[in-house]
Amino acid sequence: MKTYIFLGGPTELYPQDIFNEVARAQKNNANVIGVDHGNVILIAHQIIPDIAVGDYDSLSTTEKKIVAENVADIRFAPPEKDFTDSQMGLITAFEDLKSGEAIVIGATGGRIDHFLVNLFCVLMPNLSPYLDKIKMIDQQNIIHFFGPGSHQVKKIPTYKYIGFINLTAVKNLNLINPKYQLHDFSVNYPVSWASNEFIDDYIDFSFEKGIVSVIYSRDK
Amino acid sequence: MKTYIFLGGPTELYPQDIFNEVARAQKNNANVIGVDHGNVILIAHQIIPDIAVGDYDSLSTTEKKIVAENVADIRFAPPEKDFTDSQMGLITAFEDLKSGEAIVIGATGGRIDHFLVNLFCVLMPNLSPYLDKIKMIDQQNIIHFFGPGSHQVKKIPTYKYIGFINLTAVKNLNLINPKYQLHDFSVNYPVSWASNEFIDDYIDFSFEKGIVSVIYSRDK
Repeated sequence: MKTYIFLGGPTELYPQDIFNEVARAQKNNANVIGVDHGNVILIAHQIIPDIAVGDYDSLSTTEKKIVAENVADIRFAPPEKDFTDSQMGLITAFEDLKSGEAIVIGATGGRIDHFLVNLFCVLMPNLSPYLDKIKMIDQQNIIHFFGPGSHQVKKIPTYKYIGFINLTAVKNLNLINPKYQLHDFSVNYPVSWASNEFIDDYIDFSFEKGIVSVIYSRDK
Repeated sequence: MKTYIFLGGPTELYPQDIFNEVARAQKNNANVIGVDHGNVILIAHQIIPDIAVGDYDSLSTTEKKIVAENVADIRFAPPEKDFTDSQMGLITAFEDLKSGEAIVIGATGGRIDHFLVNLFCVLMPNLSPYLDKIKMIDQQNIIHFFGPGSHQVKKIPTYKYIGFINLTAVKNLNLINPKYQLHDFSVNYPVSWASNEFIDDYIDFSFEKGIVSVIYSRDK
């Protein structure tokens, strides 16, 4: 079962037709979680979140009222917490709802401190069992995450580029069969290997330590 | 002396009035470096880069001709290189032009693999002597970088938020006097401490190991 998680990022960057997709999916038993301002955006698009999470600090009194009147299951992040609201959304999806997949919308764009909260939130150790079940999507990018091991990603014809980004120190990263290969690369800081391309239908890659993000991307 | 470095990111996100600012600065001896598609953008706005750098792979034949006809000093990145074009722009500014400050435009937005190339490019060891001289700016964000030590940042009244992001493993990070403090925080992966605020005119912070980005940001 799938869960859509809406964060508060700018709606201009949302994937095309996402609200119709989510409305249809919700009718077919997918879950929808709103995080903070994501709840306001969902309700404004006639989608009622199954669960709202966050500290709601960034919401106006009117917006808080709209969320309170529309969402049955409202959960508050504890004020002194050592996780972020986006992490709370993901943990709720995987541990409470037992979701097989979390699709995160509104993670990108706007304030970069916010974007980096969302991108780096998957590095929190309690999310490591779920890494490869998380997908962050906007109009130009699909972001995946992988832990150590051997992996394969499949070509998506509408995305020309694929990037491999070690978000942490990485040990023996191998990009086996893309256009630009890499062999046993180790480094102790993040590096973005951007603008790679598929030459076949699949790319195989592996690494022994760290967390690697794989980003499908396309020009506008 | 100041150098403006234009990367190829989407112009919608450029700081307001940036082309007038750069034209004026160039008359007062600031340098302008275009990186790849950044050259095309500059020339389209009647600013002739003092130096063009890149591999120019992403440029059409017409665009390559426009750059060739307009820029006197065109430098080609070697095809098998272990640095990125944005790194080449920064190294050219600091080592060839001996700039005291590099202001990077067009680093953000669009393809996230590209943005992460730009953000993480400062982590390359040869840039570490110049870290605190680099500033990446768009409409909502000013991004700074710091190496280990004690630092102070000053309030900018038009930016409500300030984020502290350890882009690498970090040892004993202290945020001494912002709204939300942090004491001797150590971690081996990146974390974005977003949405902090000034309570005074200055924030002092320190850390013993790693690279920390400080991002001034504001809502749109």
